[in-house]
Amino acid sequence: MKKFESLDLYHIDSLLSEEEKMIRSSVREWVTEQFLPVIEETYQKAEFPLWVVPKLGKMGFLGSNLPEEYGCAGINNVAYGLIMQELERGDSGLRSFASVQGGLVMYPIFRWGSEEQKRYWLPKLSSGEKIGCFGLTEPDFGSNPGGMKTQVKATADSFILNGAKMWITNGSIADVAVVWAKLDGVVRGFLVEKETRGFSAPEIKNKHSLRASVTSELVFQDCEIPRENLLPETTGLKNALACLTQARYGIAWGALGAAMACYDEALNYALTRIQFDKPIGSFQLIQDKLVYMANEITKGQLLVLQLGRLKDTKQMNHVQVSMAKRNNVYHALEIARKARDILAANGIVSEYQTMRHMNNLESVKTYEGTHDIHTLIIGNYLTGIEAFS
Amino acid sequence: MKKFESLDLYHIDSLLSEEEKMIRSSVREWVTEQFLPVIEETYQKAEFPLWVVPKLGKMGFLGSNLPEEYGCAGINNVAYGLIMQELERGDSGLRSFASVQGGLVMYPIFRWGSEEQKRYWLPKLSSGEKIGCFGLTEPDFGSNPGGMKTQVKATADSFILNGAKMWITNGSIADVAVVWAKLDGVVRGFLVEKETRGFSAPEIKNKHSLRASVTSELVFQDCEIPRENLLPETTGLKNALACLTQARYGIAWGALGAAMACYDEALNYALTRIQFDKPIGSFQLIQDKLVYMANEITKGQLLVLQLGRLKDTKQMNHVQVSMAKRNNVYHALEIARKARDILAANGIVSEYQTMRHMNNLESVKTYEGTHDIHTLIIGNYLTGIEAFS
Amino acid sequence: MKKFESLDLYHIDSLLSEEEKMIRSSVREWVTEQFLPVIEETYQKAEFPLWVVPKLGKMGFLGSNLPEEYGCAGINNVAYGLIMQELERGDSGLRSFASVQGGLVMYPIFRWGSEEQKRYWLPKLSSGEKIGCFGLTEPDFGSNPGGMKTQVKATADSFILNGAKMWITNGSIADVAVVWAKLDGVVRGFLVEKETRGFSAPEIKNKHSLRASVTSELVFQDCEIPRENLLPETTGLKNALACLTQARYGIAWGALGAAMACYDEALNYALTRIQFDKPIGSFQLIQDKLVYMANEITKGQLLVLQLGRLKDTKQMNHVQVSMAKRNNVYHALEIARKARDILAANGIVSEYQTMRHMNNLESVKTYEGTHDIHTLIIGNYLTGIEAFS
Amino acid sequence: MKKFESLDLYHIDSLLSEEEKMIRSSVREWVTEQFLPVIEETYQKAEFPLWVVPKLGKMGFLGSNLPEEYGCAGINNVAYGLIMQELERGDSGLRSFASVQGGLVMYPIFRWGSEEQKRYWLPKLSSGEKIGCFGLTEPDFGSNPGGMKTQVKATADSFILNGAKMWITNGSIADVAVVWAKLDGVVRGFLVEKETRGFSAPEIKNKHSLRASVTSELVFQDCEIPRENLLPETTGLKNALACLTQARYGIAWGALGAAMACYDEALNYALTRIQFDKPIGSFQLIQDKLVYMANEITKGQLLVLQLGRLKDTKQMNHVQVSMAKRNNVYHALEIARKARDILAANGIVSEYQTMRHMNNLESVKTYEGTHDIHTLIIGNYLTGIEAFS
Repeated sequence: MKKFESLDLYHIDSLLSEEEKMIRSSVREWVTEQFLPVIEETYQKAEFPLWVVPKLGKMGFLGSNLPEEYGCAGINNVAYGLIMQELERGDSGLRSFASVQGGLVMYPIFRWGSEEQKRYWLPKLSSGEKIGCFGLTEPDFGSNPGGMKTQVKATADSFILNGAKMWITNGSIADVAVVWAKLDGVVRGFLVEKETRGFSAPEIKNKHSLRASVTSELVFQDCEIPRENLLPETTGLKNALACLTQARYGIAWGALGAAMACYDEALNYALTRIQFDKPIGSFQLIQDKLVYMANEITKGQLLVLQLGRLKDTKQMNHVQVSMAKRNNVYHALEIARKARDILAANGIVSEYQTMRHMNNLESVKTYEGTHDIHTLIIGNYLTGIEAFS
Repeated sequence: MKKFESLDLYHIDSLLSEEEKMIRSSVREWVTEQFLPVIEETYQKAEFPLWVVPKLGKMGFLGSNLPEEYGCAGINNVAYGLIMQELERGDSGLRSFASVQGGLVMYPIFRWGSEEQKRYWLPKLSSGEKIGCFGLTEPDFGSNPGGMKTQVKATADSFILNGAKMWITNGSIADVAVVWAKLDGVVRGFLVEKETRGFSAPEIKNKHSLRASVTSELVFQDCEIPRENLLPETTGLKNALACLTQARYGIAWGALGAAMACYDEALNYALTRIQFDKPIGSFQLIQDKLVYMANEITKGQLLVLQLGRLKDTKQMNHVQVSMAKRNNVYHALEIARKARDILAANGIVSEYQTMRHMNNLESVKTYEGTHDIHTLIIGNYLTGIEAFS
Repeated sequence: MKKFESLDLYHIDSLLSEEEKMIRSSVREWVTEQFLPVIEETYQKAEFPLWVVPKLGKMGFLGSNLPEEYGCAGINNVAYGLIMQELERGDSGLRSFASVQGGLVMYPIFRWGSEEQKRYWLPKLSSGEKIGCFGLTEPDFGSNPGGMKTQVKATADSFILNGAKMWITNGSIADVAVVWAKLDGVVRGFLVEKETRGFSAPEIKNKHSLRASVTSELVFQDCEIPRENLLPETTGLKNALACLTQARYGIAWGALGAAMACYDEALNYALTRIQFDKPIGSFQLIQDKLVYMANEITKGQLLVLQLGRLKDTKQMNHVQVSMAKRNNVYHALEIARKARDILAANGIVSEYQTMRHMNNLESVKTYEGTHDIHTLIIGNYLTGIEAFS
Repeated sequence: MKKFESLDLYHIDSLLSEEEKMIRSSVREWVTEQFLPVIEETYQKAEFPLWVVPKLGKMGFLGSNLPEEYGCAGINNVAYGLIMQELERGDSGLRSFASVQGGLVMYPIFRWGSEEQKRYWLPKLSSGEKIGCFGLTEPDFGSNPGGMKTQVKATADSFILNGAKMWITNGSIADVAVVWAKLDGVVRGFLVEKETRGFSAPEIKNKHSLRASVTSELVFQDCEIPRENLLPETTGLKNALACLTQARYGIAWGALGAAMACYDEALNYALTRIQFDKPIGSFQLIQDKLVYMANEITKGQLLVLQLGRLKDTKQMNHVQVSMAKRNNVYHALEIARKARDILAANGIVSEYQTMRHMNNLESVKTYEGTHDIHTLIIGNYLTGIEAFS
């Protein structure tokens, strides 16, 4: 970890407040000391490290940019981004957990929930006492969620859900699911609790990526939920998309963390691995790769920092977020691939973390809008023409 | 599998003999029917499918380009290449097993062994009764094997080995290891049998790649082997490098098989996955990826076919092989990455084979000379200047 | 020229007949001795070297794959391709002239002309006594020629043309234009002679590319041509597209010639330019570029050779041609760009030919179907789905 | 110009002061109204537009970041950078003139000149009354200027120069050359005036790039200059390299201007060019290119803005500058290439500016340290290992 900490070629740290740097340090320390020593084994076993949840809660890392009155840390969005960065320096699955809990579960409850829902759920989700998941994507509707088939019917005093959701992070371990479904043709958000009859969340097994994260299907068969579980202020698909903007914001920061971890590992290896009687870091073809990494990490940092400042001043929009998510994840994956090349044979074993990050980033490149979908979102903005279909 | 079989845009099949096509069909059929249904589970469990060894032997796929008088199939090098292609359409680990057995174990015994060694080992290795491995790379000497530290001392009637080898495919399951070590400063080849005292082969665990293949360390501590286990005609490092040329030849063909498997899967998915009310194969950004794949597979096929014809007429040299190995593996990996993008979320689960191939190809890109090392081998040829160090 | 001649890493020459090699030698010699010494000055002045036309004719390089009975050389399509390769080793403008004359003017006359038209025009075009051009593209219809607006009206004994064609190679110097226009809604081919009233061909000036080639607009204002100037066997747009297939076939070979010229120049420079006390060819970052070049040239050669063999046996189709044109031009341009980088400051002056080739190839990448259009043609074939619009 | 002005996706303008934006507007207006209407013709004729020099001087654009006491504008480095950006939006040759005049001639006089030299030269160079050039590179020493052979011998009251410099912007039109030469083995800076006997500056003709800029050789044959023409405070090669840092800083900003011009042109074309009955901007393959452009321009802007802020607070170092020069020029060239693809056939004629920018950027990528050299400068910093030789 040492190396990257000392690499700040463009003095970006000087653009951060003392509080922001302090928060970053505290996450970095916890990840380095507590999480990194065990993640690889957990990953190989394809288990989610449930023990981290209360820790994350206690340190205030869940929904940390939401207000203190609901038990959250109330920090600004740059500090929030730095937390995501440092968590993903650990593992994309760890950051995914925090993204879902904060950006996709706590955020919609905070934004469109009743005061009662907020008071009940936010403190519990913030502390890690409860876990949440977010049900939007369906098996047949990935890039165009608007086509969703999940339906809700209103009865006198309840709602009946039918349908299925897919690729749901945290699904099988969640105490509550924020589920988006059509009620009278309008997409609304609903809270579905774990033990509700007619609701099951089978886990998707045998993943090649995000193995230390739970991914599930959510199945609703005549699943009856109480009237008060509707998020009352939700009014359409745009609410769900607004949640994605929150989550993508965190991903853009997080991907940098994975990239930094790979860069650090590759640089350390290049300086210590001797071939032909010198460190391989002395070869031009190796330096070329390292320079690419440092260059793109620097640009990625400037991008999300400006994005965070815009978010804090209410100037951020979803196109900016698409650009940051697309750019930072793309380059993080390229960085991971080059780092793996530098590590050579050692790059395929779990003594080194790069290939784990590389495989995780394949999911990160795909979820919350694939690379191509973000291309078309930005392209739409630039040209005024929609080219999705 | 159907799709690619029917894609032969440049009528390359018309350049193959009936026998070559028949051999290809037989491997393809076995892989499709026997191997593919079980590989993913084996891979997830990180086990080598030992049951395939006698099958491969029985079908004549091990060392198949060596002469019939030693129990081998005696087919030409294009047919041999097609076998490698079809095996790797199954899994790179499967092809790796065959490459090692044939190109790295049977080949050196055939080329530099005594008549007695040939008569004893080749039929057993060809039938799969015995398994071999090849010990050249050492922990500190990957790209420059000439620096090896493994030493042999001659006593009155035996040799004493000391040293260690690393990243050895088949190591822990091998009955015999072809080990390269320095005797009086000259690199020679030795046969080390499984139960020899002082010889152990601990398996390397927790791999992110080639999980259905055994990779091991070989450790020699005052390991005593009989005099007759020297490969008598070996005279230096160049023998070991000649083995690598054999293996790389097979890899160049094999990588195409992995690429074809990914292309097939991505094309099928693109034609059947509906988003925005049409197959995703109707989107320009998807077609762009598919076209890249078909283009590079076609060029890669022409490259190895010409290489095989040259090999059969004794005109092949190691620079040509470097070009084919480097090119075909590089593009196979790029193809796998694009295929995984097309598969989107489904691309990370083991219902689909692409990500397994993608991860395997990281090893294939690295072993038997990394991409960069082959760049420098070819660069050396083109310029007459050595730029390794 | 020396270097590349001696580079034939994959022994591709052994796949050529003696006659094919002899023809290649004769073009290569003429280009090297007669053309290369003067092209750069001609290019800088933005002039077409008209003096080459009778030379090309005399040597039999125009429409050389058409039959001897019409005064043509009657050679096979591989030899034809090698001529294109060697001409473009000189300049893309030189090859463009030959492509237009042979593939776009002589070919349609041969294929869909009356016996009288063939007997009159083919010998004169073959000898270079007459020059032809091909009018299909219109200012508003580049990638979709089917939308053309040029119209023909039939009168009692003549045809009246109205419309305009754009980006027409040889336009202003042509004695005859093969013009495609709609007659009663059907695209037909017409021969329009130079001095015809109502026909003008203003040259397009101030080009950054193909400066040694004439590019023109063709304007038809109530242009009256005799009835016998219709190509009688033309029946639709597909005829014009078949001409493009002929021309693209030649381009695929030609681009290799430009690539070889750049590779040669860059390699020679890398071996003789000393920096830091050694030839720059000893640096890894330079070798990496040279290896890319040699690799792609080798693959491109195998591609067009197989394509030529298919053409000679009537198995060639337009999708194969799209792949070869797209691939070889793309990589020729990439090769030129890398070569220019190697030449550094010297790469921008006309003492070196690389930047001229590089700029020419921008046109070559665009004409006869842009890179993206060929992507979609191949994509259409692979998926069965048309994604042009 | 309209489009880009209105594209500021990341609200970067909000990070600029009013003065900075005002200065940018004034340059942009002059370039748009006065320069752009004539540049293409000048470029085609391969002439430098000498008439711009007094205009640039009058507007304060020459050496504008130097102090007012020497007749300069005394603006900050961000405003200086914005001037470079807007000048190169016009033409790289225009920005090159200003870079040389300010960063390579005025800067060293200001930094290491005597008070008398400063008082005499700076106001004249600032106003454009006098033109300067910078002589460091030699025919045989491009990437390693330290090897220079130009020598100075001291006589009783003068210096005698012998040697030659190459690739000197402004050489043939300069009134004064800042020449670096070895005096007693130490590199020192000297002012050589135009008419000095033994000094000639033949222009390099027939360029494919920077045709609207003068590039020359400087030849010194027993060229005698007065004692007071030594820059007294120069003490070694490091002074010349410090000048390069100044110039590279401006290039990093300037390249963005060229990139913006290409993006604007390509976007406008994509929105107005109709094919298949819709604007080509509606095709995914076109949007993909536009998104790349907008993304890299945004990142490049953030990079140089932070660099400028560091320069203004004396925290900038040469490695940061290498990264910005390398990154911004590389991506500007890639953007120009993609823009030219979008323009298709129209992209090769001088009605459109993109190909002029594209060709200029080949020089910009090469001069002041090639792309590869900057890779190795940054690589050296990251690894602590020098890999130049």
